[in-house]
Amino acid sequence: MDRYRLLDCTLRDGGYINNWEFGSVAIKDMIMKLYEAKLDYIEVGYLNSTHTKAETAIYQTIEEIQHYLPMDKGNSSFLAMADVGQFPKENVTPYTGNSIDAIRVVFYKHQFEQALELCKVIKDNGYKLFVQPMVTIDYSIDEFTQLSRRISEIEPYAVAIVDSFGYMLKEDFRKYFKILDNVLPINVKVGFHSHNNMELAFLTAQDVLEYNTKRDLVIDCSLYGMGRGAGNLNTELITNYYNMTLGHKYNLKLIMKLLSEYIMPIRAVHKWGYSPYLLITSLNRCHPNFASYLLDKHDVTLEVFNEYIQLIPEERKTKCTKEYVEELYTQFLSTKQSKL
Amino acid sequence: MDRYRLLDCTLRDGGYINNWEFGSVAIKDMIMKLYEAKLDYIEVGYLNSTHTKAETAIYQTIEEIQHYLPMDKGNSSFLAMADVGQFPKENVTPYTGNSIDAIRVVFYKHQFEQALELCKVIKDNGYKLFVQPMVTIDYSIDEFTQLSRRISEIEPYAVAIVDSFGYMLKEDFRKYFKILDNVLPINVKVGFHSHNNMELAFLTAQDVLEYNTKRDLVIDCSLYGMGRGAGNLNTELITNYYNMTLGHKYNLKLIMKLLSEYIMPIRAVHKWGYSPYLLITSLNRCHPNFASYLLDKHDVTLEVFNEYIQLIPEERKTKCTKEYVEELYTQFLSTKQSKL
Repeated sequence: MDRYRLLDCTLRDGGYINNWEFGSVAIKDMIMKLYEAKLDYIEVGYLNSTHTKAETAIYQTIEEIQHYLPMDKGNSSFLAMADVGQFPKENVTPYTGNSIDAIRVVFYKHQFEQALELCKVIKDNGYKLFVQPMVTIDYSIDEFTQLSRRISEIEPYAVAIVDSFGYMLKEDFRKYFKILDNVLPINVKVGFHSHNNMELAFLTAQDVLEYNTKRDLVIDCSLYGMGRGAGNLNTELITNYYNMTLGHKYNLKLIMKLLSEYIMPIRAVHKWGYSPYLLITSLNRCHPNFASYLLDKHDVTLEVFNEYIQLIPEERKTKCTKEYVEELYTQFLSTKQSKL
Repeated sequence: MDRYRLLDCTLRDGGYINNWEFGSVAIKDMIMKLYEAKLDYIEVGYLNSTHTKAETAIYQTIEEIQHYLPMDKGNSSFLAMADVGQFPKENVTPYTGNSIDAIRVVFYKHQFEQALELCKVIKDNGYKLFVQPMVTIDYSIDEFTQLSRRISEIEPYAVAIVDSFGYMLKEDFRKYFKILDNVLPINVKVGFHSHNNMELAFLTAQDVLEYNTKRDLVIDCSLYGMGRGAGNLNTELITNYYNMTLGHKYNLKLIMKLLSEYIMPIRAVHKWGYSPYLLITSLNRCHPNFASYLLDKHDVTLEVFNEYIQLIPEERKTKCTKEYVEELYTQFLSTKQSKL
């Protein structure tokens, strides 16, 4: 039973919704309540050397996270995410036990070599190392096997399968798990990070809870699924499901309190969650921001959006900027015009 | 493969959202496009003898549905729902082939004998009979076995497992399916109707698609999950999933067109879908309207709502009226007051 663990990433992945501006008091209290609710892993935000705004869940240094954490860490581990482009390896300071226990390194396929360097330094400095290869499905079986072998050499704590754009079926997760399960030593945990663009996050999680393996598995979730686009697996749903099916472990009352105090007020202002626009991005294997950025500025019907998205060239599908979305839309409109 | 069928109930269960006021033109076009998209069963609305408002998906007579239906019905069947309290058996007119093919009879546990009478008349008049025992989970195994036997005697076309309040796990559905599978002749189909209060509708559907049975199974869905509270299984998600895993059958382009033309405009005005408030109703096995009615009139935090819902006596949990919700809230407030 206990080989299934949950990782709450509200402060990190949910932060995209409110620009990580939770405020210091909320950050500290959220971490404490998640800890008291018995979440196994609590991700407190991003490490980013160039970010200077205070009171956010983005930290310039590992040390400044210290005062947000409980003195006694119990059975929980606390972690922060480092995007390979945002936190240079020189800024990794030695593990002391007083701040975070673990760092998750996240990277795109083309950033792998650079990511591996950062991973090594994190490991050498005494942290638990979580490795997050984004858009996992873009790796062929051979490529992912190679990647797993290279990562394996530096003895990570966990390696995750990351469904960045929410289009992996449970069969896809099982396929990538099999690779990791073959390559990684049995003490290395496997993580699962999913999104709701096809409303599959909860389903994937329930399937993972039925894996027949002796390996520890770690499932990512966030309160109310708070996160970009269609959002993540809901912490309240998976903790409740865990309690109902595997035995009572997580304190749902505290989780409801967290939702009530911190997440519902954000939800009153910001929207996230499944929409058919996001299903379309996911069916076309595109970054969900193609929908969010476009709809922020233009009134586009679902049908027109479906035409627009066909224009995106293969190599741009996972690389989405506001400027590019605009540029492509202008191009799209003029193409439509000229067809009239 | 072909033993799995989908039933779109947007015009019926989705109608709760817009008071069934789709308008005649939309009703006709929606039915036609659902038919062209190859939905196996299309539910066109409610039969209700006392309802007089025109241009809605509620029909006083079976005959008036005729002009909404395509001339050639292809492989689709068209049905309407009759709530046992709203359509007396005297109003069932003989099947001609020109109007609906089937009638779904829906009833609460205490209405069973009355429902059975209506079922018999529908069957005697030549329609395919779908039987929908609401809140299926409230039947004990013995009770549901008894019910299945009684229904079996009148040779229904299909009997459904109905998770009215969205708290049945896939294991629960399997349990009730086993009963039906034991009792009903092999030619009787089994239906599945679920809600998203715990975001389980899609998961249940995917599990049903993996049942090892020779029996035909019918899964309910609605466009964008349109429906009361947390809504239903999304037609666009389950048709896409079916196409991806069992072979291409449903026309997703037409389904997107339906969403774009008819559902997104309603969505811009009305809300539905998962919220933690609905999770709470479902965890407490209450009607989701306890959340909707209360929040329509009062600003109630999730925490306070969680306290309020504990007040509802067992026998009222599935019986929710606006007046009762108000009455209970006044009582709740005064209890809180006196505790201060």
